[in-house]
Amino acid sequence: MKRQVYFISDGTAITAETLGKSLLTQFEQIDFEFITLPYVNSTEQITNIIELITHNQRKQGTLPILIVTIVDTKLRQQLKQCDAFIVDIFSAFLTPLEMELNAPSVSATGAQRNIDHHQYADRIDAVHFAIDNDDGAITREYDQADIILVGVSRCGKTPTSLYLALQFGIKAANYPLTEEDFGSFQLPAVLKPYKNKLYGLTINPLRLQSIRQARQANSRYASMPQCQREVREVEAVFRKERVPFMDTSNASIEEISTRIMDAAGLRR
Amino acid sequence: MKRQVYFISDGTAITAETLGKSLLTQFEQIDFEFITLPYVNSTEQITNIIELITHNQRKQGTLPILIVTIVDTKLRQQLKQCDAFIVDIFSAFLTPLEMELNAPSVSATGAQRNIDHHQYADRIDAVHFAIDNDDGAITREYDQADIILVGVSRCGKTPTSLYLALQFGIKAANYPLTEEDFGSFQLPAVLKPYKNKLYGLTINPLRLQSIRQARQANSRYASMPQCQREVREVEAVFRKERVPFMDTSNASIEEISTRIMDAAGLRR
Repeated sequence: MKRQVYFISDGTAITAETLGKSLLTQFEQIDFEFITLPYVNSTEQITNIIELITHNQRKQGTLPILIVTIVDTKLRQQLKQCDAFIVDIFSAFLTPLEMELNAPSVSATGAQRNIDHHQYADRIDAVHFAIDNDDGAITREYDQADIILVGVSRCGKTPTSLYLALQFGIKAANYPLTEEDFGSFQLPAVLKPYKNKLYGLTINPLRLQSIRQARQANSRYASMPQCQREVREVEAVFRKERVPFMDTSNASIEEISTRIMDAAGLRR
Repeated sequence: MKRQVYFISDGTAITAETLGKSLLTQFEQIDFEFITLPYVNSTEQITNIIELITHNQRKQGTLPILIVTIVDTKLRQQLKQCDAFIVDIFSAFLTPLEMELNAPSVSATGAQRNIDHHQYADRIDAVHFAIDNDDGAITREYDQADIILVGVSRCGKTPTSLYLALQFGIKAANYPLTEEDFGSFQLPAVLKPYKNKLYGLTINPLRLQSIRQARQANSRYASMPQCQREVREVEAVFRKERVPFMDTSNASIEEISTRIMDAAGLRR
């Protein structure tokens, strides 16, 4: 039987999900079922949620876990009537922070918070930059790039470029290294002027093979010898040209992105 | 003088940043300076961090705030020697969770956690789907789409599609409504078979004008009458064709994405 976990928030619930999942991945032996309830802003909604949880709990038999990010104190109090194990994030940290900062916290709900249009525009611009400069499509904007990712096809360049843009507003281009670039064991001429912006991604050939196989089954592109050869040659180029690189085989997009930023000294 | 905030983690620090920022936006009157320190896994690193923070604090005069997600108990203990206000997320919640779940938590560091290759592949596929199906580029894959975003140029379709893919593994296509689609006050023929997958985005004409102006200054495309006309006509189409829609003017990408999922009943 899965243990039910509810992420309950007055906003997007992304904070509750991010924190909750990072806490619960510490319990690998337990199977969780996640239910997300965003935009909870009224006593009526809380009443309905308590009813839903109580109903589900009768079937489950175990105490549900609630990961809660609701700013309004009254709504949080109301939710405590629920028979559940509650991780109440704002209760735990807001009051101590208010004392330390010697300031009251704003009781605005997530939904009413103003967004920073300037920072928002940076992220949007970075997303369009990543798309325009995906897969070596164009190279004339490389002087504006914060970083240029290089590696074989399907090693994770595109999702990493987009994550860097969306999460951090970083302008990341990416350029695929293909067979034409190997053999000579050097970087394509178009990349040479930007050597200090390059960051290499590599991948375990077995993992690469399984990714390519899912896309183009039984092609030469997805064959084991081809994957092995490409990875071997691209790593030789990275080493010879002193391009810093990392292995993406067992890393999440988040981890690849933050490791690159850390290594390249890019500010978030 | 800005108040210094350090996000310190044994992994990417994304959880610490997400939670920390959502706590600190509750204090609008205070100016914070954010410093992120990811991949902190050794006593040597903690020693250096305490030195850095102590050094900075002498200049600042105020107590720094540490938002910490480190699993290893010994490293957390060591960090407590630092003269700072510490929000220790795992200390606050892991022990109570261990008791409730009647299970010990894994003391693996974030870096050593295994990633779920299956879920990872879904996200990557969704990212490639979003790029291939960006801006109406192709329409033949719409039967595979979870959702198709429609709206005028620069109302937020592309970043939202990509966020839905990266964060939630949702396959989102997007299709721009242009002048050719107006006047007739109906949906383009290519969208009609997928009416139940459509979700509209609209935007305040003033905000649209400022976004377009930044991209193509003083063009007809960025002129106020043009922005007003496009928004008015696209909203008329949404209403006539009963396409659900939302205003993106004051919403973050995260909020647009989660509202769409909520409205369209898409599971995370």
